[in-house]
Amino acid sequence: MKKFLKTDEWNVIEESFHADNLRAFESIFSLGNGRLGQRGNFEETYSSDTLQGSYLAGISFLDKTRVGWWKNGYPNYFTRIPNAPNWSGIIVRLIDEELDLALWDVDSFERRLDMKEGISYRDFQVTSPKGHKLKVHVEHITSMANQNLCIIKYSVTSVNYEGKISLVPYINGDVKHETSNFNEKMWNILRAETTSEYAYLWTQTRHEDSQVCSCMTYQLFKNSKEITGNPIKIEKEKMTGFSIGADVKPGERVTLIKYTAVLSSLYYDRQLLVDEAVSESKKAKAIGWDALVNEHKKVWEDIWNETDVIIDGDPEAQQGIRFNIFQLNQTYRGDDPRLNIGSKGFTGEKYGGNTYWNTELCCVPFFLLSNPKDVARNLLLYRYNHLPKAIENAKKLGFSGGAALYPMVTINGDECHNEWEITFEEIHRNSIIAYAIMLYTTMTGNKEYVAHYGLEVLIAISRFWSQRVSFSQPKQKYVILGVTGPNEYENNVDNNWYTNYSCIQCLNVTLEYLEMIALEYPDEYARIRRKTSFDKEETYRWKEIIDNMYMPEDKELGIFVQHDGYLDKELKTVQDIPTNERPINQHWSWDRILRSCYIKQSDVLLGLYLYYTNFDKEFIRRNFDFYEPRTVHESSLSPYLHSILASRVGYVDKAYNLFLHAIRLDLDDYNNELEQGLHITSMAGGWLAIVRGFAGMQVLEGLMSFSPTIPQKWNSYTFKINFRERTLQLCINKRNIEVRLIKGQSLKIKVYEKEYILEENNPAIISTIIKNQ
Amino acid sequence: MKKFLKTDEWNVIEESFHADNLRAFESIFSLGNGRLGQRGNFEETYSSDTLQGSYLAGISFLDKTRVGWWKNGYPNYFTRIPNAPNWSGIIVRLIDEELDLALWDVDSFERRLDMKEGISYRDFQVTSPKGHKLKVHVEHITSMANQNLCIIKYSVTSVNYEGKISLVPYINGDVKHETSNFNEKMWNILRAETTSEYAYLWTQTRHEDSQVCSCMTYQLFKNSKEITGNPIKIEKEKMTGFSIGADVKPGERVTLIKYTAVLSSLYYDRQLLVDEAVSESKKAKAIGWDALVNEHKKVWEDIWNETDVIIDGDPEAQQGIRFNIFQLNQTYRGDDPRLNIGSKGFTGEKYGGNTYWNTELCCVPFFLLSNPKDVARNLLLYRYNHLPKAIENAKKLGFSGGAALYPMVTINGDECHNEWEITFEEIHRNSIIAYAIMLYTTMTGNKEYVAHYGLEVLIAISRFWSQRVSFSQPKQKYVILGVTGPNEYENNVDNNWYTNYSCIQCLNVTLEYLEMIALEYPDEYARIRRKTSFDKEETYRWKEIIDNMYMPEDKELGIFVQHDGYLDKELKTVQDIPTNERPINQHWSWDRILRSCYIKQSDVLLGLYLYYTNFDKEFIRRNFDFYEPRTVHESSLSPYLHSILASRVGYVDKAYNLFLHAIRLDLDDYNNELEQGLHITSMAGGWLAIVRGFAGMQVLEGLMSFSPTIPQKWNSYTFKINFRERTLQLCINKRNIEVRLIKGQSLKIKVYEKEYILEENNPAIISTIIKNQ
Repeated sequence: MKKFLKTDEWNVIEESFHADNLRAFESIFSLGNGRLGQRGNFEETYSSDTLQGSYLAGISFLDKTRVGWWKNGYPNYFTRIPNAPNWSGIIVRLIDEELDLALWDVDSFERRLDMKEGISYRDFQVTSPKGHKLKVHVEHITSMANQNLCIIKYSVTSVNYEGKISLVPYINGDVKHETSNFNEKMWNILRAETTSEYAYLWTQTRHEDSQVCSCMTYQLFKNSKEITGNPIKIEKEKMTGFSIGADVKPGERVTLIKYTAVLSSLYYDRQLLVDEAVSESKKAKAIGWDALVNEHKKVWEDIWNETDVIIDGDPEAQQGIRFNIFQLNQTYRGDDPRLNIGSKGFTGEKYGGNTYWNTELCCVPFFLLSNPKDVARNLLLYRYNHLPKAIENAKKLGFSGGAALYPMVTINGDECHNEWEITFEEIHRNSIIAYAIMLYTTMTGNKEYVAHYGLEVLIAISRFWSQRVSFSQPKQKYVILGVTGPNEYENNVDNNWYTNYSCIQCLNVTLEYLEMIALEYPDEYARIRRKTSFDKEETYRWKEIIDNMYMPEDKELGIFVQHDGYLDKELKTVQDIPTNERPINQHWSWDRILRSCYIKQSDVLLGLYLYYTNFDKEFIRRNFDFYEPRTVHESSLSPYLHSILASRVGYVDKAYNLFLHAIRLDLDDYNNELEQGLHITSMAGGWLAIVRGFAGMQVLEGLMSFSPTIPQKWNSYTFKINFRERTLQLCINKRNIEVRLIKGQSLKIKVYEKEYILEENNPAIISTIIKNQ
Repeated sequence: MKKFLKTDEWNVIEESFHADNLRAFESIFSLGNGRLGQRGNFEETYSSDTLQGSYLAGISFLDKTRVGWWKNGYPNYFTRIPNAPNWSGIIVRLIDEELDLALWDVDSFERRLDMKEGISYRDFQVTSPKGHKLKVHVEHITSMANQNLCIIKYSVTSVNYEGKISLVPYINGDVKHETSNFNEKMWNILRAETTSEYAYLWTQTRHEDSQVCSCMTYQLFKNSKEITGNPIKIEKEKMTGFSIGADVKPGERVTLIKYTAVLSSLYYDRQLLVDEAVSESKKAKAIGWDALVNEHKKVWEDIWNETDVIIDGDPEAQQGIRFNIFQLNQTYRGDDPRLNIGSKGFTGEKYGGNTYWNTELCCVPFFLLSNPKDVARNLLLYRYNHLPKAIENAKKLGFSGGAALYPMVTINGDECHNEWEITFEEIHRNSIIAYAIMLYTTMTGNKEYVAHYGLEVLIAISRFWSQRVSFSQPKQKYVILGVTGPNEYENNVDNNWYTNYSCIQCLNVTLEYLEMIALEYPDEYARIRRKTSFDKEETYRWKEIIDNMYMPEDKELGIFVQHDGYLDKELKTVQDIPTNERPINQHWSWDRILRSCYIKQSDVLLGLYLYYTNFDKEFIRRNFDFYEPRTVHESSLSPYLHSILASRVGYVDKAYNLFLHAIRLDLDDYNNELEQGLHITSMAGGWLAIVRGFAGMQVLEGLMSFSPTIPQKWNSYTFKINFRERTLQLCINKRNIEVRLIKGQSLKIKVYEKEYILEENNPAIISTIIKNQ
C-alpha cells in the first residue's frame, strides 16, 4: 500500500508531477461515459514513458491466439478492445519549441479529478529549455450527457514569453498496442480529411470491420476573445487536425476548446458514420462549452443523488467509496445489452476489455441494488443473448444436448481465453450466471425475466453440470474432477467445494424455477420446452446428483475443505511469508504458489457468502478463522468479500481493514500494478461491503433484512438501496439506525431479526447494536 | 497405422511418388552423421508443399519465449536448432524450363534408403510441360567418415530432349522457419562468395553468434567424361553457387557431383572458418566420389558389425529394428559431450532439437549396451557439465543450498520450456538422471565416473528432493504435491507414485554411492565435500524421507495407485473409446483427457521396469493388467516399455504387438504425425524391447542375466550386448539359446536363474523356455 494522493471527500488530487510513475496516474485519472473511455493521458506531447489509451465500448479486434503450446479446444483468437485512434491530443508549440513535460522543467503541477462533476482539471507551470515560462490550465470532460462527445478546454498563459503560441488539436490513428499478440496493427485508415471547419479520421478494425469515425471542431480564444479565421490544415495518412494560434505577450492567454465526436458502427450505419460524426461535432461547437458542461454535470448530479454513500468521520473511506461509484458509472450505463464491463474498464489494456465472471459476482448485485433503473437486466440479457455460443462452446469440449458452458473471457460470447486450467476448468463461472438470475428475481420480485429468458439459461447450465459430474466408486458419490475453483492458486483439483456446492445450487434453482414457470407462465413453459427440447426425465438425474454430491469437509475442524487433498499441504498462515516476498505472485514461481496452502481469493468463503441462507454464523466463523489467515487477497475480488463475512461474524475491525483494502485498492496501489489500469469490476465490492457487510443486508424468507454494525472510526453512514420497486435509505450511526422509504409502496422489513413496516415519511428507527471485536 | 513402404530387410523403399504426403517421406528419408542432418528433401526445385530442413548439431538460436499468459519462473527464451542454410540444392534447367516434380509429370519414381551403406538413392523419369522427358538418378550421402561433408551425385539423362541441360548447385541462406515464435529471421549472412573453383556462404545465428560456413566444389561429367572450364558464378546476397551444363542428345547424360563442407564455430575458430571450409571442400573433390563413398560405407560396416540385430522369419520386424538402429547412429556418435539427442534428431523442427529426459530413459541404455565404445559416458557428462545451470534453475524456483533441478527441455543447460505443468512440475526428470548414473555404473562396473562426476550430480538432486517433499499431517507421511508424472495426461497431481518412488531411489543410490566413494575414493570424497559443502547431517533427512514416504496403493486391487484420486475416475478401458476418436490427443479437449482415466504412457509401470529388482512378476502382472488396458500409448516412449513388461510377465503376443508398434512407429506412421519428423529418441526402445524384453536381460546381484522368450513368428534372433568390458552375442531360437563371449575376459552369467561361466570359444547353450500366452 502506498499513499500518494491527497485525501479529499469529493476529489482525487495529485499534488506534484510524477514522471517516474506516470502510468499509474494515467490509470487513476481515467475518464469515461460508458461508450468512450480514456486513460488520463496528457493532451500535449509527452516523449517519455506513458501508456496512451482510448477505448470504445463494444468495438473489438480479433487478435490471433498466442500460446506456447497449443491444447485441443483453444480458441483461435483473443478478442480485445483495441486502443483507438487518439482523439484528445493537442500539441503546444512556441516558435521553435514544443511543450513536453518530459523535457521541460515542471515548476508546479496539480491535477484534480472532481468526482462530483466528472471533470478532470490540470494546472501546471513549466519552463522551456530556452527559459520560456508558460502556465497551462486544462479541463477535460467525457460527456455523460452526449455519449459521443469528448470536450477539452486547454488554456496557455505566457509568463515571460513573447511570440506565437501554436495549438495543434489532432486525431491520430497511428496507434501502438503494447499487448498485441503478434505486433499486428489493429486499425486500417479508411479516410482522413480536414476542412477549414472540421477534421476527421475514419477507421476500421482489421479482421472484422468495426468502424469508428472521430471528428473534431474547435474554438480559439485570445484572452477572452474568440479568434476566427482559416486554420492551417493537417491531413496526413493517419492523422488529421489543425494548427492555430496567436501572438502573446507575458500575461496573455490562448485558449482552445476542442469538441470531438467519436462514433462507431455499433450505433451508426457505416455509410452514415462520417456524416453523423461531422454533424455531431459541429452541433457540439454550436451548443458551446458552458451548456455542454452543464448537461454533463446534471447527469452526475442525478447519479450521486441515487447512489452516493455518505460516510461521516472517515474522509479516506469517503473518498474511496466515491471513487469506486464514480468509476463504475463512468464504465457502464446499462443502456445496451451488447455491452458489459471489462475488468479494467477503459483504463488499461490488460485483459483486453473482456468480460469475466466479475460481472455477475460484483457488478450485477451493485447495479441491481444501487441503481433504481433496471440496468442490471441488460447485464443478464448479455448472457442470455450469448446462450447459443455457450452451447457451441460446450460442444467443442465434448458436451451435448444443449449443455452450455459460458466463456471465461469474452466480448462477443465466444470463449477467447487460452490457459487450459482456466479456460476449460474454471467452470464454476457457469454457476454465477445462475446466481445472477436468482438474485435478480429475488431483488426485483419479478418472475417474468425467468419466464422470458432466465429459465433457458438455467436449463442449459444444469445440463452442463449433469454431464460434467461423474460417479466415484470408492466414494459412492458424484464428484467433479479436474477443476480450478475461484482460488486460482490451485489448478486442476478434484472436488473443489465451491464448485460442487454451486453446481447443486444451480440444479436446485433450475428445478424450483421450472416448477414456478410451469405453474405461473404455462405458455412460456411450453415455448421453452419446445425450444430447448427439455424433457422432465432430465430432472431425475439432477435430483440424483443433488442428493448424492460429494462435499469435502473436515468434521474435526468443523469446516468445508477447499478441495480434495488441501489438508495435506503445510498449513502455514500469511504471517509466515516474509514481507519482501509479497505479493507472492510477483515473487514465487507458479508451482511454488500452487503447492502452498495460500489462497488467492475466497473460495469456500465465497460459497458461504453467496448462499448465506444455508449456513449459520458459527459455521461461517469457523471457516473464516481457518481460511482467511491463509488468504493473500491477491485478487481484487477477495478483500470486499472477506470484509462482508467479517462483518457478518462480528469481526468489525477486520471488516473495516478489508473494506479499506477493497475501496482504496487502486487509490493506494495495494498490489503494485496500478500502471495496468483500475480494477473496475471489483469496485462494486466496496459498495457491497457497506451494504451487505456493515449494514448486514440479506433477503431472508423474502424480507429485506438488515443487521447493521458500524466501524469504530465512523460517526455515521448513509446509503440508498433499491428493492422490488422501492427505494430505501438507511442512515446508521452508533446510536441508531434510521430506515426510510424514499420511493414505492409500503414494505415489511427486518432489522436485527425484528420486523418493521416502512411507509413513506414514517422511518423505522432502531437502536444500533455495536458488535465491535 | 498405415502401410505405405515396401518391406525389405536392409532398405527403406518408396515405390512411387507421394506428392500429397511429401513431408512424411522427407522425414523417413532423413540423413545425418551426428553433426549434420537433413530431411529427405529433393535436391531440385520443388514448388509445392515441402519442409526444407538442414540442421547442425549444437548450433542453436535463442527464440524469444512465446506464451499466452506469463507465469513466474518461465524462461526468457526457447533454444532451438534452427533450420540451416540449405547446402543440398541443385536446380535443373532445360533451355526455358526448370525441373519441378510439383509441375512436371512424374512417369516413374523410386526412392531407396540403403541402411547397410547409408546411401539414399532416387530414380525417376519425368516429362516437362513441353514434353521433354528426362531420367534422373541421385545418390546422396552425409558422410559418416568425414562429418563435415555432404556429397551428392546427380545424373540427368535425356530421353527425348536435345539441347542444353544446366545444373545449378547452390547454397541458400534465405531460410524459412515454420516454428519460429515471432517469425524472426534466425540467420545473418556474413559473406557470400563464389570463385571459379568454389562457392561459400558464411552465416551467423542472430542473438548469440554461432557461425556456420558452407562451401562447395563440384565436378561435372558429360556421359562419363569430366568437363572442366569456367562456370557461371552465382553470388547473391544470401545465395552462392554455379550454373554449369552441357548440350545433350537423347540417350546422353550429364552428371554433377557436389561436394559440400559444412563447418561450424563449435569446432573451428571463427576467424578460420571460411578458410577451413574452402579447404575441406577442395580436399573432398581431390579425394573424389568413389574414395569418399568407400570411407563412408566402412563406417557403417563397423556399426552394423557391432550393433545389428538379426531377426530371422520376420522381415517387417527386421526392417523396423534396423531403421531404428540406423537412425540412432545417424543422429548421435558419442564423440562430443556438448551434444545430445533431440527428440526428432535432425528430421524435423518440432521440439526444436532439444534434449528431453528421453535421452536418459532410452538412449543411455541403448548406447551403453549396444556400443562397445564408451559413448554413453558423453551423454552423462552432458548433464554433469550442466549441473551449475541445474542448480541455478532450482534457485529460480525457490530452492537453495545447491539443490538442482535439471531442465525439462534444453540444449545448453538452461531450461527453455514454458508450460508450467511440465516446466515446473514434471520433476521426475531429475530421477532419470540419477538412474542413468546408476545404470552406467552397473553396466560398466566402473566406479570412477561416480567419483569424478556422478556423485556431485546425485547430491544436488537429492538436495532438491529433500526440499521438495513436505509432511502431511493427515497422512503422517512425506508427500510430494503438485507434480506431473510421466503420464502427461494428468497434470498437477499429488503423490504420483512414480515420482515418489523414484525420489526414494535417488536418495537411496546417493546414500549408497556416498558410502562407496568415501571408502574407495577418499580423495575424491574430500574434494566433493569441499566443492558441494556437503554435510553428513543432510543424509539424516534423506533417510527420514526414505523411511516415511507416502506411496499410494490399493491393497484390494493389489496395485500401486498412479496418484491420489486416480481411482475416483470413471475406470473405463481403451476399448471404450470410439475408434474415430483416437488418438484422443487429436480429438478431445485437453480437460476431457485430463479427467479421463486414460494414460498417455507408462507411469506406475515405468517404475516397475526401471527398478525391477524390487518387484516380483506377479505384482508386475497385476499392475500391467490394470494399467495397460487404460493406456493409449500416445507417447512414443510408451509401447516399447510395455512390450518389455509384457515379455517379462509372459504376455509374449502382446509384447510382440507392442514391439512392432515401437519399432515401426514411423515406418507405419502409427500416430499420424510423421510429417513432423521421426521419433529418434524412442527408437532406442525397440532395441531395448528385444534385449530387455524378449531376451529378458537383467542384472541381478551383479550378474548379467537372461530369461529369453521368442515371438511365435520368429525363427531366431541374434544380437550383441556389451557389459563390463565384454561383448556377448546371443542367438535365440525356439529350441535353444546360445550365449557367446565375443570379446573380453571370462564372465559368470545367469540364464533362467541358472549360472554359467562364459569363456571365449565356449558358448553356453541352454534350452529355450517358450512362455507364449
